[in-house]
Amino acid sequence: MFEASTKIRVRYAETDQMDVVYHGNYAQYFEAARAEAIRELGFTYKDMEAMGVIMPIVELHVKFIRPAHYDDLLTIKTILKELPTDHRIEFSQEVYNEKEKLLTVGKVVLYFMNADTREKTVMPEQLKNKIAPFF
Amino acid sequence: MFEASTKIRVRYAETDQMDVVYHGNYAQYFEAARAEAIRELGFTYKDMEAMGVIMPIVELHVKFIRPAHYDDLLTIKTILKELPTDHRIEFSQEVYNEKEKLLTVGKVVLYFMNADTREKTVMPEQLKNKIAPFF
Amino acid sequence: MFEASTKIRVRYAETDQMDVVYHGNYAQYFEAARAEAIRELGFTYKDMEAMGVIMPIVELHVKFIRPAHYDDLLTIKTILKELPTDHRIEFSQEVYNEKEKLLTVGKVVLYFMNADTREKTVMPEQLKNKIAPFF
Amino acid sequence: MFEASTKIRVRYAETDQMDVVYHGNYAQYFEAARAEAIRELGFTYKDMEAMGVIMPIVELHVKFIRPAHYDDLLTIKTILKELPTDHRIEFSQEVYNEKEKLLTVGKVVLYFMNADTREKTVMPEQLKNKIAPFF
Repeated sequence: MFEASTKIRVRYAETDQMDVVYHGNYAQYFEAARAEAIRELGFTYKDMEAMGVIMPIVELHVKFIRPAHYDDLLTIKTILKELPTDHRIEFSQEVYNEKEKLLTVGKVVLYFMNADTREKTVMPEQLKNKIAPFF
Repeated sequence: MFEASTKIRVRYAETDQMDVVYHGNYAQYFEAARAEAIRELGFTYKDMEAMGVIMPIVELHVKFIRPAHYDDLLTIKTILKELPTDHRIEFSQEVYNEKEKLLTVGKVVLYFMNADTREKTVMPEQLKNKIAPFF
Repeated sequence: MFEASTKIRVRYAETDQMDVVYHGNYAQYFEAARAEAIRELGFTYKDMEAMGVIMPIVELHVKFIRPAHYDDLLTIKTILKELPTDHRIEFSQEVYNEKEKLLTVGKVVLYFMNADTREKTVMPEQLKNKIAPFF
Repeated sequence: MFEASTKIRVRYAETDQMDVVYHGNYAQYFEAARAEAIRELGFTYKDMEAMGVIMPIVELHVKFIRPAHYDDLLTIKTILKELPTDHRIEFSQEVYNEKEKLLTVGKVVLYFMNADTREKTVMPEQLKNKIAPFF
């Protein structure tokens, strides 16, 4: 299993008039946390795109348990439970506030895709070599 | 069953560098379409908040089948399959492009909640009276 | 002078915890209104990009006079006071609410730019032919 | 003069199909940077709202010199050139990329406002005491 934690401070722009983070903004928190998780491995999603592999999101599932508020310093966990063997990769994501309360749980499914042909492909070797030792 | 359709034009701001609508932005499309669906009934979500009832989102599920692009005129369907009997309401949502291709399917679960106490409540009578005839 | 009006309904996502539209979101309203203004002429910004001309924003100026609120049906005016003669085009924009109160005034400067070379260029003939009769 | 620097990593969500950060998103970068600037002083904007003082934006001016790209680690400078004497405060903001190139310059004018009455007020003493020594 591979797991990483990223801190994100809630912006005013991300709140709504219910005085909480707008639910649609968690997709951005998850995205930023996944990017940092990969960066910790010594690779970046940007590198992958430069190599011609993009990762469109094919599924997003979010359960909102408690609200996040303006200026909260959130901890976003990115968890990869299984090493992908084909074009599909599934991340679990969790959001905690500073009191370590679980606010949100998410599941995000992405595909590895060739940027030019938009055909499915597999995880680039450079990333696989970094991540395989965790499994 | 109650069903409504809303048209939304994709903004440049909503695209990302993959030349498609950023996946997190569908939550906004769904929200705008739900608001229009309720408006068609002669009631508004704004009215409901003014009455002291808010509807936080508790679950969001989205499957991305085909991408939406800049300037696409999307049709967002909002479908209520069951009339809620308690605090929980579940909408199905579908996004189609101008060629009537299905791009995205979503499921959104919301609670009726008292704005002051943040306790669960039920659908206000004013809305129930408008929507019950469809079931 | 060329002038066009576009209606935009405020989304919940666009509000913040001050119960008003977040100031940064007006850039999107202006963008959507400019796109509709050009569409009225029988041309689209999307067409222009397809022809290899992009229009990056080089200046954005906004004065916020009165707030916009959730579910307000805003009228966004897009005004072109001078026909561009080189790579630079400047739009004035105004936002009104349903009571015809002026909420916001903006000025947006864009350049015509070749998408491939990222060099400055001029307004494509197809658009110029549509817009010149207003001057 | 008071000056502070904040680092912000560009999210995928913040790019558009021109492969750059969407111009409207700089308002969020400026906002986040102002919040961090105040935090460095040992005070927070959140504290100020809790005390009943809000700071609506009344003017936003941005010049876009060079684009920011996905995954860029931006440095946002927040500069207060004059200590406010009434309800008005004006910040200068600058965005640099990792190569220390100046990408964007901004000016943001805010008012101190009583949250309940929405009347103009002045900078709270708690903040003034922290910031006055810089002038």
